[in-house]
Amino acid sequence: MKLSILKNELNEAIQNVSRAISSRTTIPILTGIKVDVTFQGVTLTASDTDISIQSFIPIEDDRQTIVQVERPGSVVLPAKFFVEIIKKLPSQHIEIEMQDQFQTLLRAGSAEIQMVGLDPEEYPVLPSIEEEQVFSVNGDLLKTMIKQTVFAISTNETTPILTGVLWNLQDGELKFVATDRHRLASRAAHIEVDTELRFHNIVISGKTMNELSKIIPDQNTMVDIVVADNQVLFKIDHVLFYSRILDGTYPDTSRIIPNQYKTELVLDTKKLTEAIDRAYLLSREEKTNIVRLQTKEDGTIEISSSSTELGRVTEQLEVKQFNGEALRIAFNSKYMLDVLKVIECEHIFLGFTGAMSPIIFKSTENVNSLHLILPYRTTT
Amino acid sequence: MKLSILKNELNEAIQNVSRAISSRTTIPILTGIKVDVTFQGVTLTASDTDISIQSFIPIEDDRQTIVQVERPGSVVLPAKFFVEIIKKLPSQHIEIEMQDQFQTLLRAGSAEIQMVGLDPEEYPVLPSIEEEQVFSVNGDLLKTMIKQTVFAISTNETTPILTGVLWNLQDGELKFVATDRHRLASRAAHIEVDTELRFHNIVISGKTMNELSKIIPDQNTMVDIVVADNQVLFKIDHVLFYSRILDGTYPDTSRIIPNQYKTELVLDTKKLTEAIDRAYLLSREEKTNIVRLQTKEDGTIEISSSSTELGRVTEQLEVKQFNGEALRIAFNSKYMLDVLKVIECEHIFLGFTGAMSPIIFKSTENVNSLHLILPYRTTT
Repeated sequence: MKLSILKNELNEAIQNVSRAISSRTTIPILTGIKVDVTFQGVTLTASDTDISIQSFIPIEDDRQTIVQVERPGSVVLPAKFFVEIIKKLPSQHIEIEMQDQFQTLLRAGSAEIQMVGLDPEEYPVLPSIEEEQVFSVNGDLLKTMIKQTVFAISTNETTPILTGVLWNLQDGELKFVATDRHRLASRAAHIEVDTELRFHNIVISGKTMNELSKIIPDQNTMVDIVVADNQVLFKIDHVLFYSRILDGTYPDTSRIIPNQYKTELVLDTKKLTEAIDRAYLLSREEKTNIVRLQTKEDGTIEISSSSTELGRVTEQLEVKQFNGEALRIAFNSKYMLDVLKVIECEHIFLGFTGAMSPIIFKSTENVNSLHLILPYRTTT
Repeated sequence: MKLSILKNELNEAIQNVSRAISSRTTIPILTGIKVDVTFQGVTLTASDTDISIQSFIPIEDDRQTIVQVERPGSVVLPAKFFVEIIKKLPSQHIEIEMQDQFQTLLRAGSAEIQMVGLDPEEYPVLPSIEEEQVFSVNGDLLKTMIKQTVFAISTNETTPILTGVLWNLQDGELKFVATDRHRLASRAAHIEVDTELRFHNIVISGKTMNELSKIIPDQNTMVDIVVADNQVLFKIDHVLFYSRILDGTYPDTSRIIPNQYKTELVLDTKKLTEAIDRAYLLSREEKTNIVRLQTKEDGTIEISSSSTELGRVTEQLEVKQFNGEALRIAFNSKYMLDVLKVIECEHIFLGFTGAMSPIIFKSTENVNSLHLILPYRTTT
């Protein structure tokens, strides 16, 4: 294996695949990045067995020659050191040559780096995926859908299925659901897809969704998605992102979402966020994050929290629309802030069916998102 | 106590004094910020007994009225909550009113915050300092002097005196020295001061120096410094910064600094920094940070490090000037990077008196700084 390659392109590919490297892996070969060099280009692969990421660097793009291959070959290089040293090399042109025993020599400007490589034959083979169920989603939309749901996953490993986000596709509507039993986040979107294509109970780990979100570029890139039996493959430009599907059956969450409300409020999202944030500051000191919301006779609402050691925050907020009964409810303000930060609308709809029933949040601009938090049962 | 005050000015003063708040204090009153209101303005005080910071907000400045006092008074308010809530208040004008039992009410826009206050009589009195030894230093110079020395203090509490920076003033020259027994940093500067004024063995904790550095604004502010028996007072605009002087005698470090060298090198600082940084990446994995430097017959130097698990980094560097004997030396690359990051000169002088003797660093532009690191004794 012998080649020369441009630093920026190599660096970008390394940054992408290194997201799959786990610092806690017990499998020595997985602490490395696999480098495969052919006359078509260079493929980098990294994996923690749950996620595998592959990035391809072509010989050339529209503008320039990126790779010059003298001798094809493969090697596995130590990931952490590889990731850090490439960034810091003193020249744009990097020469890479594999020598005896997978020893690999990198030359850039005045710097010469000898890396202890491992046998690429020991590297696990990536799953082969039947491309039967394929569809495309706009990258920006996918990132928004991830952001609006993934925060609500459970971090409790005793119910592994809830540490993932549920994907459903039916009648051309892609829907994500996440819940940790105290709150629920869902977001749906119509996508251009053969309406025959459908799947349900595909659950992907929240960690994976976050890493995927970071790899999708900000430009309007399309992401091709292939759903197979126990794997999902995301194709983004030159990157292939493989993720395992979580085992188990996701609980049916449709029954806990009320269809009608006893009290309905429409509020200015920014003003509500700031008021909850101030009340949260105090409630946090009590560890419970309890904040109260109550409707007032003058048509406003009052947000309040208190701490025996520090004091009390009280705030009056104007209401844009108010239908139904008077209300007094307590909730986890951190959960409410999580929703308010991602909902992306000027005015927000809140629906209540009583002090012990779920609080529903909907965007007034986008009917495809729904968030829910359970209230606290308090006696005061 | 009843007043109204502008949010930004109150916030700035709170941010300054809150640097003295320790999260680990065991004295309840010191978890608070003392607020003293008179018809002249508002004084905030915070302290962790080592450092005390006082910030004064005048009734008005050139542009506007800042404080309107209806009733003077004093109270101690919970620091952490006070710091965070002020930033997040919804309006520029804040009304503050102390009620029964030091309960204090803050009103801003629609928000009302009730804080549990403490009795200001319980708050410790700040040291009164005789203003005998007073001098002024340019704030930018003081920040540079701190930056170029404070990193070399010891973090080992078994020799408390070395956790501080030594201040000396003699013949109009102010000098800082810091050492942890493995390295030493010193920086001196001539300042405009009565040459009669002198002191020695004033040692100020490194933590204090860092906090002081953050409080000095970036504009060319003068800092007035008052040195008393066991306290130093820094006056910066409306801020008074009191620091305890560390007990004990600082060791005499002058003898370990060599006067002549067997090998002298002048190198490009940026290129040396980058080469050491690459070698450091590898040496770090071996925990020792060992990097080697050796002179070559062609007049260059070679920087290298190695790790049995990862490999080897080797680099040739051109030398601007080379006098004296050939050399081969090993050192802690992290210590060298710490020096190179703060030395602020295009070319750097390195002086050596042998493989077991200190390495000396000097700026080629500023003769007032000197850094030293001890080499590693290695057999290879």
